[in-house]
Amino acid sequence: MSGDLDIIRTVADLRTRVRYWRDQGLRVAMVPTMGALHQGHLSLVAKSLENADRVVASVFVNPTQFGPNEDFSRYPRQEERDAELLNQAGCHVLFAPTVAEMYPDGFATAITVAGVSEGLCGDVRPGHFSGVATVVTKLLLQCLPDVAVFGEKDYQQLAVIRRFVRDLDIPVAVLGAPTLREDDGLAMSSRNAYMSTDERAVAPWLIRALTGVADGLRAGAKASDLCPKAVDGLIKAGFASVDYMEVRDAETLAPAELLDRPVRILVAARLGKTRLIDNIGVAPL
Amino acid sequence: MSGDLDIIRTVADLRTRVRYWRDQGLRVAMVPTMGALHQGHLSLVAKSLENADRVVASVFVNPTQFGPNEDFSRYPRQEERDAELLNQAGCHVLFAPTVAEMYPDGFATAITVAGVSEGLCGDVRPGHFSGVATVVTKLLLQCLPDVAVFGEKDYQQLAVIRRFVRDLDIPVAVLGAPTLREDDGLAMSSRNAYMSTDERAVAPWLIRALTGVADGLRAGAKASDLCPKAVDGLIKAGFASVDYMEVRDAETLAPAELLDRPVRILVAARLGKTRLIDNIGVAPL
Repeated sequence: MSGDLDIIRTVADLRTRVRYWRDQGLRVAMVPTMGALHQGHLSLVAKSLENADRVVASVFVNPTQFGPNEDFSRYPRQEERDAELLNQAGCHVLFAPTVAEMYPDGFATAITVAGVSEGLCGDVRPGHFSGVATVVTKLLLQCLPDVAVFGEKDYQQLAVIRRFVRDLDIPVAVLGAPTLREDDGLAMSSRNAYMSTDERAVAPWLIRALTGVADGLRAGAKASDLCPKAVDGLIKAGFASVDYMEVRDAETLAPAELLDRPVRILVAARLGKTRLIDNIGVAPL
Repeated sequence: MSGDLDIIRTVADLRTRVRYWRDQGLRVAMVPTMGALHQGHLSLVAKSLENADRVVASVFVNPTQFGPNEDFSRYPRQEERDAELLNQAGCHVLFAPTVAEMYPDGFATAITVAGVSEGLCGDVRPGHFSGVATVVTKLLLQCLPDVAVFGEKDYQQLAVIRRFVRDLDIPVAVLGAPTLREDDGLAMSSRNAYMSTDERAVAPWLIRALTGVADGLRAGAKASDLCPKAVDGLIKAGFASVDYMEVRDAETLAPAELLDRPVRILVAARLGKTRLIDNIGVAPL
């Protein structure tokens, strides 16, 4: 499967390639990423290969989804290594457009999603999900894949994408894929590279805090009791601050108090200058 | 060409039909409308037939592009007559979805376009162009035509559509078609049906006012001198009020003062309870 990766930089070339595949009756999958790839991304490529004949992974660090004080300029960029990993994973095309290709002069359009994009990361990062919705719509309409695969690591993002894909009738099936974790449970993330050795040792407390809340919910406790205690635990463990620790309906992301339906426990916390997010699902027995 | 019109009401059926055409290598055009069709709409079908093998006209009175005090509930609905006219014009499919088909439960997404959607009708009708952009995106992604044809009668709308189609990489070519007029110069519009006989007699002053400004620009006068005089003329002729009378760059819709490039003169005015819009283009010799 590996050894055939082509790098494509323009929308016109991407469309030519996808049309060529379509003419042969091949199914196409897309994996939109911001690069700095790890095993989590490669699992999305693997899932794509189970659902399609050809896979396009995009690498684009999208400026419009970063806030003014966020890490756009220092976000890791390592295209050569990304290409090598994608090639080994059996990906067929790396689509790596420039900012000018994505946002030509006079660009003036934005997509906003109410409901699922509010609260959680939507409150802490104003404009973030509008930036995500707009760029993902562009990527999907540039490629027009049959399926697009996104990680559950960014759970709210996945909910936002499912929502606008359905609302705008974008002709693609959206698939979510489970979060991959390091041996100590830390969710794989390109931002893990920001951490010092000391911070990296503290980071696994994030998944411990999530499983603690999950255990509490299973024992019948309330989210409003469990979450503040979990936040205290993270601060004691060495986190600088916690943006949120919340229990939400797994589908609508509406606040949930008890384990009376499938829920998602979501957390965002800061360790030094690094902002980490994670989430796990819990369902009633 | 006429006699084959099918009426389709669901997105799934529309996609099946378009896929069937595509498999035969046929080119598809779309004409999005709100129904109450007149010769202006039928000229868009004719232009579609010049550019494609099959034509889908949609009829959907989109609630989200009407303001709370606008004419959504009384907007003329006459599907049987529309179907007959489309059939005669050689249109192949009338796509007439319900509101529930277009906006299912939980719908939460909106598209906004800065720049071209600001000022003119954008100021007088807040939210209007977001409603237009969102529904036209949906219709285009439901049908995925090769070309889509819109009238220059709604000139700002056409500029907004060109902008977001390009910005979002919607894979369709947008074509504009010139405004059709009654014998006395009044631009054809579904809203002309609202007027009383007396109002209908006053209405042609709109195009006279526009051509007056055009003549003035050609003679070297300034927009800032010409437009207020044209507004006075409309009020004297019997219009209740004038929302705007402006000269804009024909492409960017930036304000223009002199005829030093191709410009568009745009007007919106109220005659009794009816709001009429019109526009004409003028280019330097």
